[in-house]
Amino acid sequence: MEGAWTIAFLGPKASYTHQAALNAFSGSNFHLEPLIAIEDVFEAVQCSHANRGVVPFENSTNGSVVQTLDLFADLQKRNPDIIVCGEAYVGVRHCLLGHVKKPVPASTFSSAVIEANDDLSPISSGRATPTLTMPDPLQPKTQPLTNIKHVRKLYSHPQAWGQCKSFLSAYLKGSERQDVSSTSRAAELVASDESGTSAAISSEIAARVHSLDILAQGIEDRPDNTTRFLIIMRRSSPDSRHGEMHDTPGIQDCPDDQNDGMDTHKSLVSFTVDHEDAGALTRALAVFQKHGLNLTSFNSRPSGIAPWNYIFFVEFKGRRCGGGEGAVNAALRELDEVARGRRWLGSWESNLDRR
Amino acid sequence: MEGAWTIAFLGPKASYTHQAALNAFSGSNFHLEPLIAIEDVFEAVQCSHANRGVVPFENSTNGSVVQTLDLFADLQKRNPDIIVCGEAYVGVRHCLLGHVKKPVPASTFSSAVIEANDDLSPISSGRATPTLTMPDPLQPKTQPLTNIKHVRKLYSHPQAWGQCKSFLSAYLKGSERQDVSSTSRAAELVASDESGTSAAISSEIAARVHSLDILAQGIEDRPDNTTRFLIIMRRSSPDSRHGEMHDTPGIQDCPDDQNDGMDTHKSLVSFTVDHEDAGALTRALAVFQKHGLNLTSFNSRPSGIAPWNYIFFVEFKGRRCGGGEGAVNAALRELDEVARGRRWLGSWESNLDRR
Repeated sequence: MEGAWTIAFLGPKASYTHQAALNAFSGSNFHLEPLIAIEDVFEAVQCSHANRGVVPFENSTNGSVVQTLDLFADLQKRNPDIIVCGEAYVGVRHCLLGHVKKPVPASTFSSAVIEANDDLSPISSGRATPTLTMPDPLQPKTQPLTNIKHVRKLYSHPQAWGQCKSFLSAYLKGSERQDVSSTSRAAELVASDESGTSAAISSEIAARVHSLDILAQGIEDRPDNTTRFLIIMRRSSPDSRHGEMHDTPGIQDCPDDQNDGMDTHKSLVSFTVDHEDAGALTRALAVFQKHGLNLTSFNSRPSGIAPWNYIFFVEFKGRRCGGGEGAVNAALRELDEVARGRRWLGSWESNLDRR
Repeated sequence: MEGAWTIAFLGPKASYTHQAALNAFSGSNFHLEPLIAIEDVFEAVQCSHANRGVVPFENSTNGSVVQTLDLFADLQKRNPDIIVCGEAYVGVRHCLLGHVKKPVPASTFSSAVIEANDDLSPISSGRATPTLTMPDPLQPKTQPLTNIKHVRKLYSHPQAWGQCKSFLSAYLKGSERQDVSSTSRAAELVASDESGTSAAISSEIAARVHSLDILAQGIEDRPDNTTRFLIIMRRSSPDSRHGEMHDTPGIQDCPDDQNDGMDTHKSLVSFTVDHEDAGALTRALAVFQKHGLNLTSFNSRPSGIAPWNYIFFVEFKGRRCGGGEGAVNAALRELDEVARGRRWLGSWESNLDRR
């Protein structure tokens, strides 16, 4: 529609990133477009095909999404204008999706036989029973809603196995696992499997989209399992100064901001340090301390310059003000003296307490 | 054999970890035992089934091995006595292993037809040609040794895809990819595939073990692609004070050591910080700076305590001396005042310059 913003997100439809995009950009002013890979979302925003992009950044159980960090590191210089302008949190409620095993029709067997087969009882392929070799097994917080003994093969995104360890080790220990590109894709594959012996770790919304049965619900290890998504925009985008509910520009006027947004905003910066200068990282981190900028996350990835040389990602409380004023600008100037290749990746309003 | 040490490593045989174990423990005094998963290696050492363990820690292109970090984090309290006592570096030279497509026998066709089919020329399934959408494609540093047009499916460990991006995007763009548990396992699967249309990203040693053809050699993006392995031991092991060429105990007497081993040793420590105390991480890192301990790597993983609370892994130059003396002990005492759940993970002799 005329004038609507295009929001690119990591698809397919019904993915957790889709949920994050809906949380941040709901209503008819937004056209949501699923893309295949995280790098496609970066490219769509860099090339101005999309006004905003939504990408996964970290999961509270599994940690950082390294593909997203590497796209911010941008070793190939393909996304030089991307900055972060917002964030969204989505609670991850994994389900086991598949096909309920139909009970054997009563007319073909005596009732005694049906009872013995009792195909709808929640019998599993394994148990969380203490043994000599594993005296303290992981305790799953849920059990299957139906019999899942017929499940032979599992599909999911690699991150999901790590988020559902207890349930998998208790009930599906012997099943073959196949990595696929997304939890939604996993559901799609199971829907097309006519044998009925495969299942997907995916979302409730994917069960609806792909008409699958929910064999178990809330199978993630931690009830507070949450993924954080970042909203990205193009730095030089013509709409980067428009006021908008869901994001803030990378640099902004903040005249009334007495404490540089330290209670309300977060910022992200990346840098490398001189490979030969062993103390450079320690000195770089001391700059943040000196200016009272408290770190909220810290990541490192290979820099691509030389082995064992890293690019560091520091996220901290506070925002960068226009005009070169404030603690953040002061810290960035000092950081430039000890670090190399420093890149500003944006300030945005923290959403953690509002999720 | 009597008195030989058991060295557990991440198998299967012919894996890169096997190579690292051979580098560190060669000779008849060592019995090398391949195990299926990294956690099995930790468990074998924790339970004293093995005297030492060898596990991958980080790759110079792909970054940290998060499974190993999580086993050091030890949220399930299964490996409380594991410390690091050494390291080994192995250059990663990936090969494409498969079956050379046999030329059509000359007797069945005219020579003109054979020329047109020319099945042994290095024709690929793609090219690194600049296009409008990709003006600056990745340039692979090698090309296939033979025709690989018949390759339809690829097997490898997930980390290998990221290390061979250029070759894969230039020559095997359309091939299906299947993640498996190790590059050796990938070779094994290809060896048993009778269609001859699959290939594995694996090592030269795996080609020999599984009798496969080398279709391309040195297909990794970077010529300096290297994986670092850590050697682990049990802290309270009765042999932990024995002098041995390849490792050093976690804590040691270092009376003549004027600079706390800062030129020769590295140490690893993990800690968490108070979730509510926003400045705690910055203060914790300042402790290392204050005592002149230069950071060589820094990693963070979810702490398992609460979402967005992390466990940090700081590796630095220097070693911990016995008797509570020296810079490292002083830093650890101060770290205990600002950090929580601090865990000492050992000092060892740096091997970086000797690889």
